[in-house]
This record gives sequence, structure tokens and C-alpha cells, in this order.
Amino acid sequence: MAEEVKLLGVWGSPYSRRVETALKLKNVEYEFVEEDLQSKSALLLKSNPVHQKIPVLLHNGKPLAESQVILEYIDETWKEGFPILPKDPYERAQARFWARFIDEKCLPATYKVLWGCEELEKAVEEACELLKILENELKDKKFFAGETVGLVDIVANFIGYWLRAIQEVVGVELLTKEKLPKLYNWSDEFCSVFQESLPPKDKLVAYIRDRLQSTNTTTTSS
Amino acid sequence: MAEEVKLLGVWGSPYSRRVETALKLKNVEYEFVEEDLQSKSALLLKSNPVHQKIPVLLHNGKPLAESQVILEYIDETWKEGFPILPKDPYERAQARFWARFIDEKCLPATYKVLWGCEELEKAVEEACELLKILENELKDKKFFAGETVGLVDIVANFIGYWLRAIQEVVGVELLTKEKLPKLYNWSDEFCSVFQESLPPKDKLVAYIRDRLQSTNTTTTSS
Repeated sequence: MAEEVKLLGVWGSPYSRRVETALKLKNVEYEFVEEDLQSKSALLLKSNPVHQKIPVLLHNGKPLAESQVILEYIDETWKEGFPILPKDPYERAQARFWARFIDEKCLPATYKVLWGCEELEKAVEEACELLKILENELKDKKFFAGETVGLVDIVANFIGYWLRAIQEVVGVELLTKEKLPKLYNWSDEFCSVFQESLPPKDKLVAYIRDRLQSTNTTTTSS
Repeated sequence: MAEEVKLLGVWGSPYSRRVETALKLKNVEYEFVEEDLQSKSALLLKSNPVHQKIPVLLHNGKPLAESQVILEYIDETWKEGFPILPKDPYERAQARFWARFIDEKCLPATYKVLWGCEELEKAVEEACELLKILENELKDKKFFAGETVGLVDIVANFIGYWLRAIQEVVGVELLTKEKLPKLYNWSDEFCSVFQESLPPKDKLVAYIRDRLQSTNTTTTSS
């Protein structure tokens, strides 16, 4: 049976890029459908009625939501391709633990710094502490998964690519060579491996500038 | 090799009870070690340095944290026992989706109502809306997983058991036969199946009364 794989996403979203990265690693052909988050498509609303968010993966018409759930699905469905999770149950659990840590701790703290908050200095310190924990987990490995990438690297894509671009525009320092040398080196490795599945830097920076400007001209923050 | 399975938990915690439920379903013998959260053991701090939280499962000395991560580990390690996740990748993804929905949406909204908040009426409405989504997912199934229990039922244990006991003490109505008939019936089924691995109701109610009293006599809420 011919596979029909369709991804509803947004070009600049690290969450839909996670799914694209996994599909590319598995050599799965897919159709990318760009969503307009200001005017979500009927297909998105029908496919993810609970959260109404991207990414949504449609596999032979069956919808899947939540990027980490989708990554595990891709790994279990296209088993023969590149392994996203390790085989050993304990190592799998470790990968899931760190992937959750990134989504539940690192990203909210990082977003708080980047998208504006009242006590910036304190927020920077908190985010750096969390990123330091992640850095320690890298140890002397090239990637979180070892010599090749895996679940944690894919989930950490915002830290690997977006963060350095955004902190430059915003004018804060989170991920620097001085503060977090291992994580910084990892982000270089990450970008060189995933270059093809990352959004163009110029376009991303322009988008962030626009977003910052519109945030600064409204009273509500996102 | 003789297995050494040790669980660091708290008798009244739905999170460590999730792990106990899974171990019992798999017929895995384990030692339960009660933690004092006011004075955490050196073993807990060493085993879960990132979150310093229960539950922690020690399997032959190797530590695992985060209840949902532990549940998947148990399912993958004791494969031959009762299946906690279904076999089919799409069904597995659905189970993971709903388990995340419970932890990320339903429980925070429910805790907000139960442990005090400023706009109670609004909070009750929000929590009920989320529980309604969960109720709709039950459809006419006996359990979330179908005829027998699975990941979502285990993760929903707070809703199945704790919620009805606590709402009575607190004096709010979230899970009632009138508002959420299917979820209410499910919670009856849940309690009858898991009776042995749930904390005694009297002890739980006394604990909640104590907790409420101490919350009311301090200025900070938990």
C-alpha cells in the first residue's frame, strides 16, 4: 500500500521541525502543509480538536498530535529506518526523561527570557541553571544519544538552533561558549547535521524581529 | 539473576501509586520505601537529582524517575506480563496522547480547584470542560484502554479515586454522576479493579483535612 504521510506545521516552529527531522532521518517521504495559525485550517481543527495545535501528522488519513508522541510513533512505525530511540529499555527511559525535561523545564524557562518577563535577571539565571543541567547530561558525548543523534537531540532543536538566533535579536545571553561550552559545541554539531531541515536563519531572524515589535506595541505578551 | 525492585514513594501520592499499580499488574515483586517529603532521603536525592521528587524506581540499583517514563519502562522490561500499552503503534500513540493530556491539562486544572484559587467558579468550569473531553474519549468503553485497563487508566488514577474523596472534603463538585456520568462510572470500575493498590479512604480523607487546615492557616498556598 502506498503510504500517505502529511504534516500540518509551520515553517518556523521547532515543534513541527522535530517531526520533519524524524521523517527525514527515517527517509519517509511526506507532504508538508503550512498552517496559518491566525486562521487554522478545518483539517487541523478536525485532526487535533483537543489542542488545535500544530504539528499534526496524518498517516494514511489517521491524525496524530503532540510532537513527542509523533516522534515515538514514527520510530515504532518505520522500525527499519534510523533508530530515534535506543533499543535498551533503560536507555529509552533516560531518553524520555530528558526529552520531558526539555519540554517541561528548559523551554518554558527559556521562552520566559526570550519573550519578555518582569524580572529578567532572575529569569536568565533560572534558565541558565536548567540549561546547565542539560549540559551536564551531555558529558563528553557528541550528541545526547552518543555518536549519532536521537530523541533528545531532536527534541532539543530549539536550544540547538532557534535559541542562538533569537538571543542575538533580543539581546540576552543564555547559550554562549563561555557559559555553556558543551551545549554550545553540541549546538554547532546539531546545526551542521540538521542544516537541511532547519528554517533559513535570515527568514527566522526577520520573523522574530517582527514578532518582538508587535509584542512591544501591544499590552499583552504572548 | 534475582531482580531487585525498589520504589521510593509516598503512600498517598497518585504518582507513586501509578507505579505500584503497574508493578502489581505485571506481578513484579517490589519493596516500597516510604519517603518523608519534608526530609528527603539521601537515596532519593541521589537517584533523582534533577527533580528530587518521588516516585523513583530502582531496578537492580539503576534509578528511574517520572511516573509516565517509569510506566513505559515497566511495560518494556517485563514484556511478558499484563500489557500496559497496546501493541499497535497508532493505539500506543493515542494512549500516550491522553496520558499527556491528563498530566498537562486535567490535573493542573483540577488541583487549582481543589487546593484553592481566587476565581473558584471559573476554575471549576475550566476543570469540568477538560474532564468532559476526557469523558468523551471514554465513549462507551469500560476503561480507556477498552475491556481491560491500560496506560491512560493508570495515569488517570487521581481522577478515578482521589478526586471524589477530595472534592467531598473541600466542598466542590467536579466529578459527579450528573455532570460526568461516564467518567463517574469509570471511576467506580477503576476503584473496584484497583482497590488493593489504592490508599485507604479514611487515611486519605484525614490527610486531606490536615493539609487543608494547614493551608488555611498559612498565607502561602501549595
